[in-house]
Amino acid sequence: MKNHQTALLLFLLIPSLIGCQSTIPSDTNQLLAESLQQKALSSDLGFQIVESLTVEVGPRLAGSPKDAMAVAWAEKKLQSLGFDRVYKEAVEVPVWVRGKASASIVAPFQQPLVITALGGSVATPAEGITAKIVRFDDLNALKNANPDDVAGKIVFIDQKTERHKTGKGYGKSVGGRSRGAIEAARKGALAIVIRSIGTDHDRMAHTGTMHYEEGLKRIPAAAMSAPDADLINAMLKRSADITLALNMSPENKGSAISYNVIAEVTGSSKPDEIVLIGAHLDSWDEGTGAIDDGAGVAIVTAAAKLIQDLPVKPARTVRVVLYAAEELGLVGGKAYAKAHAAALDKHYIAAESDFGAGPIYRIDFQVNEQVLPKLQQLTQVMQRNGVAAGDNSAYGGPDISMLPASGVPVASLRQDGTDYFDYHHTPNDTLDKIDPKALAQNIAAYAQFAYLMAQSELELRPLPAKQ
Amino acid sequence: MKNHQTALLLFLLIPSLIGCQSTIPSDTNQLLAESLQQKALSSDLGFQIVESLTVEVGPRLAGSPKDAMAVAWAEKKLQSLGFDRVYKEAVEVPVWVRGKASASIVAPFQQPLVITALGGSVATPAEGITAKIVRFDDLNALKNANPDDVAGKIVFIDQKTERHKTGKGYGKSVGGRSRGAIEAARKGALAIVIRSIGTDHDRMAHTGTMHYEEGLKRIPAAAMSAPDADLINAMLKRSADITLALNMSPENKGSAISYNVIAEVTGSSKPDEIVLIGAHLDSWDEGTGAIDDGAGVAIVTAAAKLIQDLPVKPARTVRVVLYAAEELGLVGGKAYAKAHAAALDKHYIAAESDFGAGPIYRIDFQVNEQVLPKLQQLTQVMQRNGVAAGDNSAYGGPDISMLPASGVPVASLRQDGTDYFDYHHTPNDTLDKIDPKALAQNIAAYAQFAYLMAQSELELRPLPAKQ
Repeated sequence: MKNHQTALLLFLLIPSLIGCQSTIPSDTNQLLAESLQQKALSSDLGFQIVESLTVEVGPRLAGSPKDAMAVAWAEKKLQSLGFDRVYKEAVEVPVWVRGKASASIVAPFQQPLVITALGGSVATPAEGITAKIVRFDDLNALKNANPDDVAGKIVFIDQKTERHKTGKGYGKSVGGRSRGAIEAARKGALAIVIRSIGTDHDRMAHTGTMHYEEGLKRIPAAAMSAPDADLINAMLKRSADITLALNMSPENKGSAISYNVIAEVTGSSKPDEIVLIGAHLDSWDEGTGAIDDGAGVAIVTAAAKLIQDLPVKPARTVRVVLYAAEELGLVGGKAYAKAHAAALDKHYIAAESDFGAGPIYRIDFQVNEQVLPKLQQLTQVMQRNGVAAGDNSAYGGPDISMLPASGVPVASLRQDGTDYFDYHHTPNDTLDKIDPKALAQNIAAYAQFAYLMAQSELELRPLPAKQ
Repeated sequence: MKNHQTALLLFLLIPSLIGCQSTIPSDTNQLLAESLQQKALSSDLGFQIVESLTVEVGPRLAGSPKDAMAVAWAEKKLQSLGFDRVYKEAVEVPVWVRGKASASIVAPFQQPLVITALGGSVATPAEGITAKIVRFDDLNALKNANPDDVAGKIVFIDQKTERHKTGKGYGKSVGGRSRGAIEAARKGALAIVIRSIGTDHDRMAHTGTMHYEEGLKRIPAAAMSAPDADLINAMLKRSADITLALNMSPENKGSAISYNVIAEVTGSSKPDEIVLIGAHLDSWDEGTGAIDDGAGVAIVTAAAKLIQDLPVKPARTVRVVLYAAEELGLVGGKAYAKAHAAALDKHYIAAESDFGAGPIYRIDFQVNEQVLPKLQQLTQVMQRNGVAAGDNSAYGGPDISMLPASGVPVASLRQDGTDYFDYHHTPNDTLDKIDPKALAQNIAAYAQFAYLMAQSELELRPLPAKQ
């Protein structure tokens, strides 16, 4: 027995265990949740996990050899932590190879630019594309443009991403990245190079997925760093005619098999009911995938490990899902929802950690509106860890965002993402960007959430009707 | 006549002008200095200059075609500002071409690194160099190492650069960059890759000059980003044997002619006596040379322009020198000292701006110890612009650092360099890193300094004997 706390808890638990798991008084759950917080905050397991992933594997673009290494790493790591079950489920993922990307302004003033290919982009011809640029404030301005002003040119979408604790600036600007090539091609553009979707002033470009549309030409798509976008604006003050040379050699190479890697703490009395905590295992290829999403992998794994190590397991099963190929279109999340469609009614609640390692300041839910106050009461203990009660607006996270449509309740443990989009999808996504203390606070919150949900007697369904 | 201030100054000046320039009462100089501050703070000329240089020329490595463009830009800019004299002096500069540089850890965990070649480095063989690394805390540890531990390996000097307002951390760590290849070659190393000399956590490597020594093998020298150095340390916790693959193709290509570009406000009564304010025109090639040293170019040029525009010129000549090839070994500064050796006794005082655009908080001198209090009294007006009186420890700046040996007094206008080494010698040295307000404060300080020195009746020589 490790300490007084454990002794106290066992003392509190034993009388209940003689009867039925569901009769454990809620104050015992609260005490256990407090104990989980203390254990999380005094452990460096989470940081060890993300260090191991970023150092021993590093960048792990879905479908690449490094992705396969990450899957093997995850299986081994989860097994070594002693979870009741560790297994993986095959997922077919697209294979995209970055190749090289370069760009420069050739007139009126010759200057090299720092760019990166957007994920999924096609290549330029080998000799590159050299054309005048046409600048737009945002995707809407491009949509409203006269095709005569766009045809034969390289589109430059110049929208800045606003810094915000919630990261909501990203949602406002990311359309230019994801749909810019479609709208540019519709008007006859030769290529598109956007201002990076990021809040930093570093001379680094932010990658991320982009889409094409059937029936429209697939044009090369890249992002430039914020200082380079500023440079072009300063040139535009001097001359309306700016010529850009672009050369990119990415390749879309079909598909490969990757895996959702899963670990479970088997529930003691309702093992077929699932509390799902997820993160994604894949990462972009230019950093080491520390904040996106090595942090999430560490958070949900270390949180579940704390529950695995409890002397008495909670009622429901706590399932850790490390999703494949989130970055390439929530591929693992969609595959999970499909593979587990018949069991989704047994998913009590789900949450995903995919927003770095900034401290969690609030928990939101998407549950039956009537039960929300009771749920907030149940999770009140999380406030001592800095996690305030929120509202019923959660979407849960990218890989579980499709679950509410099947009736699965979700929670969003809101993290402070003030600096998240400084590093997101850049070479700067490295281990030094993670604060070990904040990571431990996240682990405490996920451990408390998972435990309390696995013990909860509340009926969270049905979800509110969609507006 | 623009405003009341000008009218007042002319009123104050005219009686003195009837007699002799040297009889102008000092309070008039103080009033004029205040007026210069006000004009500097309400003008955006400095920012316009550095924007023009970084946008219309950009990176301008000494001896490159862009360097020649920068010289042409400077001549044209100085002429357009209406200085009394604009001319240039030829300087023979080394030509070094960056080529490509890449590196990766190949064992125990394959990971790419972000590196940059150090300026002056030779290339690796075309097939690269693959060898085990040997880590040292700093240059001294390498010097003290057993050659058996170094021979046949790639040296990794892992010294961190401390953040400090004065930038003094740079002086402590830069030896590893400048002399690391010499000490590593002396012990039989194949190459050297240092932790970047910088205070940031960006995944960007910092370039800068390095040296070789006659009689020792010239080995390739590069710097890696701070996160990459952290990555190697994390690997070293897991395995003592780390194998690095390095491939670089820089070339030393002899020499070329560049120029010190010079502008003057001719002195009204002592035109052969010089107050020199300098900066360097060249820059490294990976950023756009904004803080190093476009800022300095803007500061001294805009400061001199304010003096050029005075209704009555000060007694001495104010000379702006935009030095060539500072980055490649103070080449322009040394050439200036040689070319002007016979006239150095007529150099009243010199100062150089080469530390970004952080606000100036203090002025130090290197003058006759006895005159320092009077000089501090004379420059007391600068305190209203935030510039406190300092001490007699100034070295002046890199390109004028050789002048005190010839008896020339110098001043150091100390800037807040807290974040200077975050960006220094990286792709991140771009215009957005300059705060226009701080730039204007610098211009005010240099204008006041240059004006007051051009009017001063103090005898600043002889300099204190060297310790």
